[in-house]
Amino acid sequence: MSDPIDFYFDFSSPYGYFGAERIDALAQELGREVRWHAILLGPMFKATGSSPTVQVPVKGAYARHDMLRTAELNGIAFRVPEPFPISTVACARIALYLEALDFSIARRFAKRALRAYYVDNVNIGEKSAALRLAGESGADSAEVAAAIESQPLKDRLRAANDAALARGVFGSPFVIVDDEPFWGFDRFDAMRTWMKRRASHADLSSIR
Amino acid sequence: MSDPIDFYFDFSSPYGYFGAERIDALAQELGREVRWHAILLGPMFKATGSSPTVQVPVKGAYARHDMLRTAELNGIAFRVPEPFPISTVACARIALYLEALDFSIARRFAKRALRAYYVDNVNIGEKSAALRLAGESGADSAEVAAAIESQPLKDRLRAANDAALARGVFGSPFVIVDDEPFWGFDRFDAMRTWMKRRASHADLSSIR
Repeated sequence: MSDPIDFYFDFSSPYGYFGAERIDALAQELGREVRWHAILLGPMFKATGSSPTVQVPVKGAYARHDMLRTAELNGIAFRVPEPFPISTVACARIALYLEALDFSIARRFAKRALRAYYVDNVNIGEKSAALRLAGESGADSAEVAAAIESQPLKDRLRAANDAALARGVFGSPFVIVDDEPFWGFDRFDAMRTWMKRRASHADLSSIR
Repeated sequence: MSDPIDFYFDFSSPYGYFGAERIDALAQELGREVRWHAILLGPMFKATGSSPTVQVPVKGAYARHDMLRTAELNGIAFRVPEPFPISTVACARIALYLEALDFSIARRFAKRALRAYYVDNVNIGEKSAALRLAGESGADSAEVAAAIESQPLKDRLRAANDAALARGVFGSPFVIVDDEPFWGFDRFDAMRTWMKRRASHADLSSIR
């Protein structure tokens, strides 16, 4: 079995949500497993001197329209949530905690939280909402509530985010497969083509 | 006949070059003409608080790799030029001057200059190189050399760039068709799908 695909996303990233809705099917098509990583874009924006796109003059208006169009073209249920963007520290901690505990509950939580935010306009930046969704995903809410306040988990999330950044991750979604990085939902098709060409031993040596 | 497609590009944008290599065929497929607009990203970066991607920490390294991969996946001849990025004021003035003079020479110049830079590593930021390429495209080099130093042309380029920014253009390539904006070479497929859906009267009213 080949190495899994590393899938990085921030809960406050619409394109990360689109990626989350598609990455498992794409991985299956490529015969790979997926490792999900909830990241925090805040520190990454700092490292790259960036801002949330919707807050950038001129580009922000375009981005809002492009999100809606991308969802429409891909048949993904979506509305621009309000408030947006939000802090995703609680969700990211929950995802990290569940990942170590029960892989399938973690995945269920991530997808459920993303849909709650981007379809049902639930503010998952609020800890209470995030914990409720963890419970609905099969986790013990009280246990999770305690865990996400613990210093070791906070430290682990910071370390995981630093490790992602050190690996070159700076946006959401971001996928790394066999050391090949793909930034953005708009690179999923390129990823598919790339992987299939590699599988058929096409000569891609010129750019490796 | 429907309105032409407005195609905006900066000579120092690799993805703009990729777009320039594909926009005519795509427009033909959609039954549209193309209006080419050489823009200057510098003032747009200022307006959006952005920087040339290759100069951004972490993201820059990714961008260089993604350019090569995008060219490879699309079968477009390409090498990362050196120096990069460059000033494209001379090229943009030449393109604007020729556009008013002879549409087909203007287009030939744009494509020739882009290929010179991205394939043959000619520094088209140097005025002499840009003028030589204008001559090779069928223009009178001496006439062009005089024109691009004239204040009216300088003013026209500034006004054209301001008009593009006012219309929401902030990157390269940037395409506007029937008031629908598409930023990036990676939106060409979306543009095709979008236009065909509109042509078939699919209901896209939800996001218009």
